[in-house]
Amino acid sequence: MELILYNGEMIKRSEAKIDIEDRGFQFGDGVYEVIRIYNGQPFALEPHLDRLYESAKKIYLEIPYSKSELKNLISSFIDLEKVNVCNFYLQISRGASVRNHLLPEKSTPTLIGYFLEGPRPINLMEKGGKVVLAEDTRWFHCDIKSISLLGNVMARHKATMAGGFEGILHRGPIITEATAANVWIGKNGKLYTHPPSNLILNGITRQILLQLCQKHGIPVEEKAFTVEELFQADEVFLTSTTLEVVPVIKVDDAVIGTGTPGPLTRNLQQLYEKKVMEECGALVKGHTGQIR
Amino acid sequence: MELILYNGEMIKRSEAKIDIEDRGFQFGDGVYEVIRIYNGQPFALEPHLDRLYESAKKIYLEIPYSKSELKNLISSFIDLEKVNVCNFYLQISRGASVRNHLLPEKSTPTLIGYFLEGPRPINLMEKGGKVVLAEDTRWFHCDIKSISLLGNVMARHKATMAGGFEGILHRGPIITEATAANVWIGKNGKLYTHPPSNLILNGITRQILLQLCQKHGIPVEEKAFTVEELFQADEVFLTSTTLEVVPVIKVDDAVIGTGTPGPLTRNLQQLYEKKVMEECGALVKGHTGQIR
Repeated sequence: MELILYNGEMIKRSEAKIDIEDRGFQFGDGVYEVIRIYNGQPFALEPHLDRLYESAKKIYLEIPYSKSELKNLISSFIDLEKVNVCNFYLQISRGASVRNHLLPEKSTPTLIGYFLEGPRPINLMEKGGKVVLAEDTRWFHCDIKSISLLGNVMARHKATMAGGFEGILHRGPIITEATAANVWIGKNGKLYTHPPSNLILNGITRQILLQLCQKHGIPVEEKAFTVEELFQADEVFLTSTTLEVVPVIKVDDAVIGTGTPGPLTRNLQQLYEKKVMEECGALVKGHTGQIR
Repeated sequence: MELILYNGEMIKRSEAKIDIEDRGFQFGDGVYEVIRIYNGQPFALEPHLDRLYESAKKIYLEIPYSKSELKNLISSFIDLEKVNVCNFYLQISRGASVRNHLLPEKSTPTLIGYFLEGPRPINLMEKGGKVVLAEDTRWFHCDIKSISLLGNVMARHKATMAGGFEGILHRGPIITEATAANVWIGKNGKLYTHPPSNLILNGITRQILLQLCQKHGIPVEEKAFTVEELFQADEVFLTSTTLEVVPVIKVDDAVIGTGTPGPLTRNLQQLYEKKVMEECGALVKGHTGQIR
């Protein structure tokens, strides 16, 4: 990673620095997106950018670029860096202002964008993994993709310490989402996932999969389910931009279903991969995750 | 503000820059303190530093300086800058690491410290002000003084838009705290404030006032109170490092008590000011808030 997109320009990574009073650094006052690049093509760029503007609006942050300007910047940047499979990280914070909880009357937002290595998690996608259950102690604006992420970070840390690749969160009896993914269960041939609300981030992968279910006649309902229903599910999986569709075969020490990825999970994995290929081309070199 | 304390050294403010992958900037992954300086003397430095280490410990962040090292650094910095009345802002984030929710195995924390102008809010302390009630939608680790502050920022913004100088937060029927202060009520000659828990920050000013109440025989109980009890209180006030003791004479459009600062509030203001003077000397030039 030699270059980064910084306030509309491509500059050297080593020259990209942030002011100590940037509100992103002192208040977690900003929003972000992670966009997956396959074959050098951004996948689902449009809905990601739409969500960036929505998140920004919810925190009263005006992004000083139009959507088409951002699209052009990202497109030029991809061409320049010749990336294949990786993640594009895009963050906009409220910018520098004398420290005060109050929103500043004027500040110039700080936009950064750059590529992060990220191979497709092939092994996890094939074999599934263990997750750890934890109380959801985050704020009540999880629909905003904000950089005030310490709650997610701490939950993920606890899950990792307990041997999980992710943590599934619950508010009392209700499963909300994972620390950086949405949670789905399959029971008697039907899928369930938490409806969009202030308690979850409405994942782009989640939305795409819902469309694919509808298109292919796979029964699905956006309905909150309980911790008990999670443990009694035939199959469980997580979805996110970077994970795609990853089977969960164990929650804490309890085996889910047969302890292997379920048929609905397998079906969605294939439908999602097909959708990615339709938009970004065959995933021949898709597994390396190297930026160059 | 020409100098800042940056990772143990005094450097020029203009040269103090943060890496784009500092976890403070991408995850709100850090903790902070605001220490009040009166007459060029830090007030209650010891408990502020203790809390900094406690907050850091709760997020598994190891501060690479001993408390006495930090005290010496702050002391030298005050001497160098010749400040009078102001705030000293001290923040430590987890430092730079390739972006990942997972805590990095190794990272070098970023410490910044600098002075912020801040006159004593004399007018507000004398006349009191209006606050606005809002649902507390923050996370459940409010005991940690973290920089993931967007929940507080948004609540404060709403309060400001509604004409309040602060916002008082409630979880359902229970008053927790203000967006950057603790809340107290007085009823029938007795004071009440929320007990320390994960729902509030245990303010240093709050703790000092509790000690003063005990010392001077002022009846006080650390007990959660309701929204209804707030409106029916004889007097209400907020306490924080920067506000000291500020009377609340109106909540939304309802007048509290007689609509003027109450006798318990006045008493605590005087006791607190006396305590400050004992530690930092007479507050002759105390009202200007100029850094130099």
